[in-house]
Amino acid sequence: MADWMTSLQTKTPKEGFELAIKLAQKGVEYTQPSESIRKKLRPKYSTNADSLIFASEVIAIHFQTVAAANEYWKDRIHYFSK
Amino acid sequence: MADWMTSLQTKTPKEGFELAIKLAQKGVEYTQPSESIRKKLRPKYSTNADSLIFASEVIAIHFQTVAAANEYWKDRIHYFSK
Amino acid sequence: MADWMTSLQTKTPKEGFELAIKLAQKGVEYTQPSESIRKKLRPKYSTNADSLIFASEVIAIHFQTVAAANEYWKDRIHYFSK
Amino acid sequence: MADWMTSLQTKTPKEGFELAIKLAQKGVEYTQPSESIRKKLRPKYSTNADSLIFASEVIAIHFQTVAAANEYWKDRIHYFSK
Amino acid sequence: MADWMTSLQTKTPKEGFELAIKLAQKGVEYTQPSESIRKKLRPKYSTNADSLIFASEVIAIHFQTVAAANEYWKDRIHYFSK
Amino acid sequence: MADWMTSLQTKTPKEGFELAIKLAQKGVEYTQPSESIRKKLRPKYSTNADSLIFASEVIAIHFQTVAAANEYWKDRIHYFSK
Repeated sequence: MADWMTSLQTKTPKEGFELAIKLAQKGVEYTQPSESIRKKLRPKYSTNADSLIFASEVIAIHFQTVAAANEYWKDRIHYFSK
Repeated sequence: MADWMTSLQTKTPKEGFELAIKLAQKGVEYTQPSESIRKKLRPKYSTNADSLIFASEVIAIHFQTVAAANEYWKDRIHYFSK
Repeated sequence: MADWMTSLQTKTPKEGFELAIKLAQKGVEYTQPSESIRKKLRPKYSTNADSLIFASEVIAIHFQTVAAANEYWKDRIHYFSK
Repeated sequence: MADWMTSLQTKTPKEGFELAIKLAQKGVEYTQPSESIRKKLRPKYSTNADSLIFASEVIAIHFQTVAAANEYWKDRIHYFSK
Repeated sequence: MADWMTSLQTKTPKEGFELAIKLAQKGVEYTQPSESIRKKLRPKYSTNADSLIFASEVIAIHFQTVAAANEYWKDRIHYFSK
Repeated sequence: MADWMTSLQTKTPKEGFELAIKLAQKGVEYTQPSESIRKKLRPKYSTNADSLIFASEVIAIHFQTVAAANEYWKDRIHYFSK
């Protein structure tokens, strides 16, 4: 796979959350590289509440990592408030 | 999506918990952007104990992140007790 | 909801564990605010081993947060041993 | 409940692991206080591989907490090796 | 098994993510050492959305470890930006 | 049970991973002490993909603990590179 991630640093918490989503998706992609198979699975899991909560959990775990990598974006707040 | 989160900092633990809930919901929203589909799923998972415990788990994981980002709201306690 | 949590600080590990239980319950309450529905679900999940282990897992995740917030209640031990 | 836990400190990693087991059990006990109901559930979950792995997961989460609380029992090693 | 891992250090976040995938696979391999049995299981879990999300979760947990071991690859960014 | 673990310190990441596997197994053993029952369960879970991923997850959680206890085996690298 191409170099899809060069840094865990993001400008804002929201961008960090979106990186967490990307990481959760990449975990699925590496395990099932076929895009056509993944697309076939989407209608089922995306309309199943437990699957959606499950996806949200994986995002939550990655968001912990990304948030820690960015020291919770606290520095940037200091730039403005100090 | 609009900029729904600009900081992980909250004034109180309770507000931090509510941010954790929001993050858990956002993980679902990004995975299933259709509000009408999400609303259809609600009656089922919100009356299923395991789904509710599952949702509570995702909130717990995000609360770890938010609590760490706020250094467990210990500073604010010091302002009063010192 | 009223201000049900003002601090993550507790006097003892046991009180911290009970706060973790409260947090796990609050995650369910926010997701399903109806007390009558939650009460109806109780007989089923409270007699199902996997649901009980699941509930115990959410408590465990919150206890990590509460324990870290209290620096594992190590200070209090120092008061006696120093 | 009586004061079943006064400290997260243990002398050895093995004792810490046993405390983690106790914490996992307590999470179940608080959720289902009836000992007779818990005993009835035991034959089923204790002969189900997934339930056993699940129980092991909750222990693993608590062991993270207990190990951190004891700074991974590194100090005690230093007493002997230094 | 041969020495399949000599370090948690990687040059880039992407390589760290791939190490996390390897660790998740190794956890399966140690539990089921037969390659032929693992290959038989692949068609089923790799076309099941929940199994793929589950695999992605284990990767996420290992990525936390690898990212922490590499201090989130922040040093390398400093080499260029300072 | 005999003193099956005296330290979380290991020489290499691979040995740390194997300790994580041992800890995951011990969690099962403490919950189901009968070796004959555990052996009966093995054919089923060891040929079920989700059970194997589940086992891999518990290993991943313990590996976080062991890796942190060993400061990610970074010191040993320094001995050679400095």
